[in-house]
Amino acid sequence: MSAPKKVVLAYSGGLDTSIILKWLQTEYGCEVVTFTADLGQGEELEPARQKAELLGIKPENIFIEDVREEFVRDFVFPMFRANAVYEGLYLLGTSIARPLISKRLVEIAEATGADAVAHGATGKGNDQVRFELSAYALNPDIKVIAPWREWDLTSRTRLLEFAEAHQIPIAKDKRGEAPFSVDANLLHTSSEGKVLEDPAEMAPDYVYQRTVHPEDAPDAPEYVEITFAKGDAVAINGDAMSPATILTRLNELGGKHGVGRLDLVEGRFVGMKSRGIYETPGGTILLEAHRGIESITLDRGAAHLKDELMPRYAELIYNGFWFSPEREMLQAAIDKSQEHVEGTVRLKLYKGSVNTVGRWSDKSLYSEEHVTFEDDQGAYDQKDAAGFIKINALRLRLLAMRNKRG
Amino acid sequence: MSAPKKVVLAYSGGLDTSIILKWLQTEYGCEVVTFTADLGQGEELEPARQKAELLGIKPENIFIEDVREEFVRDFVFPMFRANAVYEGLYLLGTSIARPLISKRLVEIAEATGADAVAHGATGKGNDQVRFELSAYALNPDIKVIAPWREWDLTSRTRLLEFAEAHQIPIAKDKRGEAPFSVDANLLHTSSEGKVLEDPAEMAPDYVYQRTVHPEDAPDAPEYVEITFAKGDAVAINGDAMSPATILTRLNELGGKHGVGRLDLVEGRFVGMKSRGIYETPGGTILLEAHRGIESITLDRGAAHLKDELMPRYAELIYNGFWFSPEREMLQAAIDKSQEHVEGTVRLKLYKGSVNTVGRWSDKSLYSEEHVTFEDDQGAYDQKDAAGFIKINALRLRLLAMRNKRG
Amino acid sequence: MSAPKKVVLAYSGGLDTSIILKWLQTEYGCEVVTFTADLGQGEELEPARQKAELLGIKPENIFIEDVREEFVRDFVFPMFRANAVYEGLYLLGTSIARPLISKRLVEIAEATGADAVAHGATGKGNDQVRFELSAYALNPDIKVIAPWREWDLTSRTRLLEFAEAHQIPIAKDKRGEAPFSVDANLLHTSSEGKVLEDPAEMAPDYVYQRTVHPEDAPDAPEYVEITFAKGDAVAINGDAMSPATILTRLNELGGKHGVGRLDLVEGRFVGMKSRGIYETPGGTILLEAHRGIESITLDRGAAHLKDELMPRYAELIYNGFWFSPEREMLQAAIDKSQEHVEGTVRLKLYKGSVNTVGRWSDKSLYSEEHVTFEDDQGAYDQKDAAGFIKINALRLRLLAMRNKRG
Amino acid sequence: MSAPKKVVLAYSGGLDTSIILKWLQTEYGCEVVTFTADLGQGEELEPARQKAELLGIKPENIFIEDVREEFVRDFVFPMFRANAVYEGLYLLGTSIARPLISKRLVEIAEATGADAVAHGATGKGNDQVRFELSAYALNPDIKVIAPWREWDLTSRTRLLEFAEAHQIPIAKDKRGEAPFSVDANLLHTSSEGKVLEDPAEMAPDYVYQRTVHPEDAPDAPEYVEITFAKGDAVAINGDAMSPATILTRLNELGGKHGVGRLDLVEGRFVGMKSRGIYETPGGTILLEAHRGIESITLDRGAAHLKDELMPRYAELIYNGFWFSPEREMLQAAIDKSQEHVEGTVRLKLYKGSVNTVGRWSDKSLYSEEHVTFEDDQGAYDQKDAAGFIKINALRLRLLAMRNKRG
Repeated sequence: MSAPKKVVLAYSGGLDTSIILKWLQTEYGCEVVTFTADLGQGEELEPARQKAELLGIKPENIFIEDVREEFVRDFVFPMFRANAVYEGLYLLGTSIARPLISKRLVEIAEATGADAVAHGATGKGNDQVRFELSAYALNPDIKVIAPWREWDLTSRTRLLEFAEAHQIPIAKDKRGEAPFSVDANLLHTSSEGKVLEDPAEMAPDYVYQRTVHPEDAPDAPEYVEITFAKGDAVAINGDAMSPATILTRLNELGGKHGVGRLDLVEGRFVGMKSRGIYETPGGTILLEAHRGIESITLDRGAAHLKDELMPRYAELIYNGFWFSPEREMLQAAIDKSQEHVEGTVRLKLYKGSVNTVGRWSDKSLYSEEHVTFEDDQGAYDQKDAAGFIKINALRLRLLAMRNKRG
Repeated sequence: MSAPKKVVLAYSGGLDTSIILKWLQTEYGCEVVTFTADLGQGEELEPARQKAELLGIKPENIFIEDVREEFVRDFVFPMFRANAVYEGLYLLGTSIARPLISKRLVEIAEATGADAVAHGATGKGNDQVRFELSAYALNPDIKVIAPWREWDLTSRTRLLEFAEAHQIPIAKDKRGEAPFSVDANLLHTSSEGKVLEDPAEMAPDYVYQRTVHPEDAPDAPEYVEITFAKGDAVAINGDAMSPATILTRLNELGGKHGVGRLDLVEGRFVGMKSRGIYETPGGTILLEAHRGIESITLDRGAAHLKDELMPRYAELIYNGFWFSPEREMLQAAIDKSQEHVEGTVRLKLYKGSVNTVGRWSDKSLYSEEHVTFEDDQGAYDQKDAAGFIKINALRLRLLAMRNKRG
Repeated sequence: MSAPKKVVLAYSGGLDTSIILKWLQTEYGCEVVTFTADLGQGEELEPARQKAELLGIKPENIFIEDVREEFVRDFVFPMFRANAVYEGLYLLGTSIARPLISKRLVEIAEATGADAVAHGATGKGNDQVRFELSAYALNPDIKVIAPWREWDLTSRTRLLEFAEAHQIPIAKDKRGEAPFSVDANLLHTSSEGKVLEDPAEMAPDYVYQRTVHPEDAPDAPEYVEITFAKGDAVAINGDAMSPATILTRLNELGGKHGVGRLDLVEGRFVGMKSRGIYETPGGTILLEAHRGIESITLDRGAAHLKDELMPRYAELIYNGFWFSPEREMLQAAIDKSQEHVEGTVRLKLYKGSVNTVGRWSDKSLYSEEHVTFEDDQGAYDQKDAAGFIKINALRLRLLAMRNKRG
Repeated sequence: MSAPKKVVLAYSGGLDTSIILKWLQTEYGCEVVTFTADLGQGEELEPARQKAELLGIKPENIFIEDVREEFVRDFVFPMFRANAVYEGLYLLGTSIARPLISKRLVEIAEATGADAVAHGATGKGNDQVRFELSAYALNPDIKVIAPWREWDLTSRTRLLEFAEAHQIPIAKDKRGEAPFSVDANLLHTSSEGKVLEDPAEMAPDYVYQRTVHPEDAPDAPEYVEITFAKGDAVAINGDAMSPATILTRLNELGGKHGVGRLDLVEGRFVGMKSRGIYETPGGTILLEAHRGIESITLDRGAAHLKDELMPRYAELIYNGFWFSPEREMLQAAIDKSQEHVEGTVRLKLYKGSVNTVGRWSDKSLYSEEHVTFEDDQGAYDQKDAAGFIKINALRLRLLAMRNKRG
């Protein structure tokens, strides 16, 4: 790879990406463009602008954008249509944000004439893969720079020395090492590393940042109604809202009731297992609600096929293959299934749990007429079941006869 | 089908199966053998013996058996190795009991020279399918009698008239109609029908029979440790126990903390949707714990394959295909994966929820050495990740080049 | 089911469906509408009109239609996009025609005010299922009449007596029983029953009707080029043609070279195994060609996902679930994958076999630059492969270390 | 990676691996152990011994082994139980040999105290991955040396210079470049590269080495009967033979009749597409025969599950994951299904094609009694089919009603 001339950096404004910024300038002598996105991580972005300017970035090279609506509408919601969970439990909060960031990095590179993008993910994690696969899928000629895999700033001490040597301001609380590492966006907060590295040990209370302890949640349950159209949430308690607003509101509700905490050991794409603490308050409610509305509006054939495809779909997102033909194929199948997934689900939030307690829809496939214990007026002929069973049993009986024969 | 001469009836001792017993005698003039199983449903079995005798069954034709250990060891535990849930949520508590009952019905038929078996499931549900497919798979020549699909006792009034006409004792509380229908065994209690038929309406409190309301559960969490060997739970808090004892103990713990309630609309194999309330206190804890121990002992390749196979496996059990070659094939794959699934999981029970908070194992695949944020002493070369990504990206880049070309 | 008043019958003009026509009139006293489709079975349709008139059908109730283009464009081609084969070998020639016939039956019923449809499939086969599932999926209130499951004309003798009693003309060669049963359309000819019932016995030569014996095929191979656009064949040897014309032409080519014969024992949806002889000359060429064009234009991720979904897709079609949400979901995924499946494949036809010998496309993903044994000018860095392997191996090494530990 | 001290090299005795042998000695100064396996590639092995000795390898460090029986029994046959084909067509002849070679390399390393293994696969292909994943899975601490990824002998000229400089004998016909590259073993011969690199061009005749041109095959068909037990071929035309003998004999038959040629563009695991010419005469016959015997002895449920699992299984083998938990899980499922796969298949070989023409088995599930067009004596009640269809249709009708509504 020839040396990059102009690099778009995913820049948070924090110490680490500031060091990367400076390292790119000094190591490659290249022009740096910064991209700072509001994905709902709950931080002010303007300080990032000031910091970038302080580090010598030209104003026209500083991109600061609120991408929350795009994030929820084009990434989070399509994923939730699939009821995607990785390894049975993880709601993919970090995984789903990376492709959007890469997409903007590549677009900004094209707009600014940059030939490279850079990110601050380490060489041990999944995020490097997600950033880079997305970038290459969108621009096959882009260069990708991953300083954590390249540089020799391999200890906290050396990082801080580099920062000092280059006049990068270091917040006082960053002198010591953080007790764990955090990623946050509108869908979730993840924490990992350091104090969390022993999976036998319970995560300390202070790790949780976005949800109250279930023990501290209100003593009375709260009920919420979520309305769906074409598989996406469109209203809460009857109030129509934009995608990002809905997720924000569900986060508040979930956070208040201690919903959406997960302590997980997961298999990384790069081959090792890692332990993470995830808080996904709104997403946890949304998944339960989506399953609830599907339960009355989705045919069994479609629902079961979705369930079988889901693990693969979730794996693709986890592994960084959002922009891949196979993810798009699965999305086409999933989206096809959601045409009539509309109606309302009523949920109970209480001390860490969320449960569907009612659901209704104009598009319901639930037929009280058919299922009733009462007289069904001929809607269903129980004698048909005898034939159904006899024919389904035929191959099993032929097997049993064969096996009897010896 | 020629008329049966001797029928083994799955007999609970309740009013409905007593009517069936008498109906078989009068309709077919055949000898009836009763089979009453203790599956952990929490009822005395001796009254069933007395009732059967009262209805004229010869003592040698009355079979009353405690099958709890067999149920958990040979049916529930193998199923939990798969983390089986139907339609994302249902733990298959009723489905998994039916094949065992059919197996014993067929065995008793062979032992007593009976040519038929009979059950009390209706023509609208899944249980008829499960009973009958299992019976046919085990004995291709058996006759199966499903009185609910055959007789003309189609209203409560006619049923009671029949009972009275045949001196079948009717408990006072059975005169009126039950507000819902119940099935119970060591794994779960299910309730459906009548007051539950409108899926928009919250299930009334009195439906729940086995778990306290989360609001009434203890205000302090309780922690429990479950130890696994070859994928099966073998000890609680360090005390080794038999399979049925473990499930019994977990039911107590879960019930006390309001764990394992589920309000679900599901797609029946016979084509309609139905709404059920399930309580699976011990099973819910067990599933969480099993996922927890797998998370550190199961390789990602095996774990993901299991996740992809699971929906099919669960569907087979739900649909009554326990005794089928394809279920056995999947079981072989699942069991193969469980060889090293051993160790201990620590869980927190609190007001309706159960969460893994720690896990450890001599067979752990979690390598702190590899995952650490600290210096890993060369266990992992971050530069390898660059090649890993480049090669994974190659096909995506070739695609992007092609698409660029137009 | 109340008695039908007006029935649309799938009518071939042959003896069997003529008997059905008359039986519907006499048994139900209902008005009969006939639908005779040209699906490419290679028979004149006008005699069917005359016969229907002779049997008293009003001219406005006689529907005779050439549906060959619709058949290939909307059913055969979408199916071939999936490379669908049932049980590894069967190209689904009969299965794919049934939904189209049912669709027209239901549409004609709606147009003529009929409340029922009828077909001539027996109660042992798959076709009854395919006809009826399709009909119900398109009109949930339609009545379906399957005379072969209902009537008492259970022997050849009784059928002929009925025909004679009702002045149905009987061709001389229909007096004796046919030595096997045939279904034909533009995609294939299938033969089964009678002389074919022993699967150990080689099918007699006279069973084959559409392909020459490979031994009698030309001694010189013939080469043909098929061009695709969006996954569908659009030209042969450079000549653009309509879908049905393409399949007709490929049938001629395949038939001449003895291509597309299959002697198969298959598992019917109704539970038994049956043996069939299939001739699918054009379809066999088309499948090979489609795989050939996909091999250079479809990404590996998409191709492998297609291969994994295919058996399910084929099973759905075989079982009669063309008009089901799950088939439509899979179709959406498959169609998504075909956007760039275009280009030309060169095939060799010779004495029973068809083989791809060349393929090229403007949308090719094959990169000689990357794959070459010669100097690749840096397109691919072999050192990347080392990292790729090391990271892929990590989980296997962690497993091996664990297993070593014991 | 620290420098290796003693290396076990997969050594063919040819020029390339001789150069590698010398390069290992000179580059690393390490002791070299050679392993030469007879996998049925059809070459004498003793010359490899002499050549190794000539290059200074101590006699006790020269391992020459006939592994043909192990190859077929433990690798080829288990794979054929799955009917494995990669991308619909490739019989995995190269892929399945690599794990066995790695297994022996690792075992010999352990026996001789070597700390590394080496192979002659390039950095662009799949074989490097297969060799190395297998080695790491069997010994997590082994070092793997892949000279083609490391050295600077990047042109034919430099290779020959190196050979001359080190007194490595160069056969006269190796001076010029081979027009394509070959791999062979008892299962297949593959050819790729150079003259084959343009996938639009027909492969020249001289590429084929193991099968006659179909045009040159005998003008009369030949019939062969293969007998199976537990899914493996055990006899040909009634003569019991060892696994390797069977495959050898089938290769002769297939080769004589021009059976098993394949011209394929495939997706490599390392991300590019490549074109190969494969000749798998015996394997092609075996696959057809195995499908034939399964067609009458395998239940539909098992058969369809196998078909759905197969593409993943084939992909795992192709990608080098033979020694992985997920391959072993799938193998357990597949092997479970083969318990009753026994009986005999009769096949016709003729000018490039192989077709099943008859099959019989004591374990047949084919029931002429059930399938017959004649009177079945009550084995099957056609009226059952009505109920079967009605119940299967119910969900489709509920969907149609819903869609009508709105």
